[in-house]
Amino acid sequence: MKYSIVLVLLYLLVSQYSFAQAKWRTPVSDNLVYLELETGTVIIELAPFMTPKHVARFKNLVAEGFYDGLDFYRVIDGFVAQAGDFSEKKPSKNKALLNAEFNRPTPTKSDFMLVQSPDFIAPQTGYLHGFAAGRDPNAKQEWLLHCPGAVAFARDVDANSASTEFYIVIGQATRHLDRNMSTIGRVIYGMPAVQALNRANMNNASGVIEDTTKRSKILWAKLAKDVSPQNQLKIQIQEQNSDQVTQRLTSAKTLDNEFFHFKGNGNLDVCYYQLKTRLVDLP
Amino acid sequence: MKYSIVLVLLYLLVSQYSFAQAKWRTPVSDNLVYLELETGTVIIELAPFMTPKHVARFKNLVAEGFYDGLDFYRVIDGFVAQAGDFSEKKPSKNKALLNAEFNRPTPTKSDFMLVQSPDFIAPQTGYLHGFAAGRDPNAKQEWLLHCPGAVAFARDVDANSASTEFYIVIGQATRHLDRNMSTIGRVIYGMPAVQALNRANMNNASGVIEDTTKRSKILWAKLAKDVSPQNQLKIQIQEQNSDQVTQRLTSAKTLDNEFFHFKGNGNLDVCYYQLKTRLVDLP
Repeated sequence: MKYSIVLVLLYLLVSQYSFAQAKWRTPVSDNLVYLELETGTVIIELAPFMTPKHVARFKNLVAEGFYDGLDFYRVIDGFVAQAGDFSEKKPSKNKALLNAEFNRPTPTKSDFMLVQSPDFIAPQTGYLHGFAAGRDPNAKQEWLLHCPGAVAFARDVDANSASTEFYIVIGQATRHLDRNMSTIGRVIYGMPAVQALNRANMNNASGVIEDTTKRSKILWAKLAKDVSPQNQLKIQIQEQNSDQVTQRLTSAKTLDNEFFHFKGNGNLDVCYYQLKTRLVDLP
Repeated sequence: MKYSIVLVLLYLLVSQYSFAQAKWRTPVSDNLVYLELETGTVIIELAPFMTPKHVARFKNLVAEGFYDGLDFYRVIDGFVAQAGDFSEKKPSKNKALLNAEFNRPTPTKSDFMLVQSPDFIAPQTGYLHGFAAGRDPNAKQEWLLHCPGAVAFARDVDANSASTEFYIVIGQATRHLDRNMSTIGRVIYGMPAVQALNRANMNNASGVIEDTTKRSKILWAKLAKDVSPQNQLKIQIQEQNSDQVTQRLTSAKTLDNEFFHFKGNGNLDVCYYQLKTRLVDLP
């Protein structure tokens, strides 16, 4: 992998060269939630265009401090880290069960950018407002994918039963949950902090950490606007419709450098090629 | 996800019921290497049937203490954690460049168990001696997949240039590295310790942690036979050819429980359905 370091550095030079061409977007502050965990800071970008009711619920819960002091009670390595009120007894005005938002009808003007058709699991995959997404042209539906870092609401067997609990995908994409869960966004900063969360014992198939002292805590959760200026981080995300991204995908399809002796079959897993994020130093 | 807890518990009951039927195998001690990291204990099961020269090299390096005190110097969240001697100056008799072992000719009697055909990236995927594997019936080749937890030797652009450095896949499967790298095995215990390794800064595309004090160390690496009895862990792995595994795959293909309102398309990502491992308490 030594050589790939050289390649990546070249790539970095290219991307820096093109900073002036606005290849990176700054997410709308209103769509950002900070989670301060025992293991570090995490920032989630929300996707209200896909799951407006669940996103509004999450923001309301965050704003009222509902998640402060709660924990990641179900953490299965290679699968998901689930957080919230395991007791289901913490009071809140924002607990009524929500109707499912597993997908949306494809709007007349969608900014869906195709990456792979057919995908292994979905008819099409690509990017939608910067999130890895699936699309079915026949059913005229779009949805967000359960790639690593995806954030979704937990629910009971009833599709319309999400309330307050949420999870983050921490392993190989759980694509069987696509179109089955209401996905509210993705982690754009701090996945190492999520990966550092205490796991359930490997023999514990339920994944619930019974010893509550071993659960990693959410110290606080805040809407970006409520985070103090000194704790604000400026994160940017690659623009999906940019030469930078197109070049990366084109190169990935053919593995067009000499490091790769086997050139693949041209198929791309969009969960591996999620749009990159970067931290920008504040002035 | 609450309901799935119930399902998983049911599954656990079923699997416990079938312990007597030997659905779990104990890996050969000779194929196990322990890595004692600052973040915890990791056990790798080696795959000498696929990469005999690289496995022999790794075992020789471990036996001579080569990795003791070295570190994970290149750790990119969602990609790989690479370890060894970044300086390339540490002396050893086991450093000569190795010829590539990217795949093997399919033997007359292969225990390959088919899971998915065609797979998204490979003509076929399944299990081979308990490892996630690919197969090309036309080229008559088999290889191990770069699923999360896969362990492989790093190399330079020359296919035949691996020496001592290795990496562990820590994110979405890096399938573009399949058939391009010599994969020596997989982590069967301790992925949370691997996931807790210090990462490079997210803006650092090379992934090399320049501040050496921030690199997570390998305290020691040992062949299982050299690990003191009190530090031995008894790990077992699901038998690929077992009712337990077949049932899991059959259920996964149709998502045949009421939790899933969308039933998928029947395709399975073998990197998500890797064979499970468990810890057995010593008597």
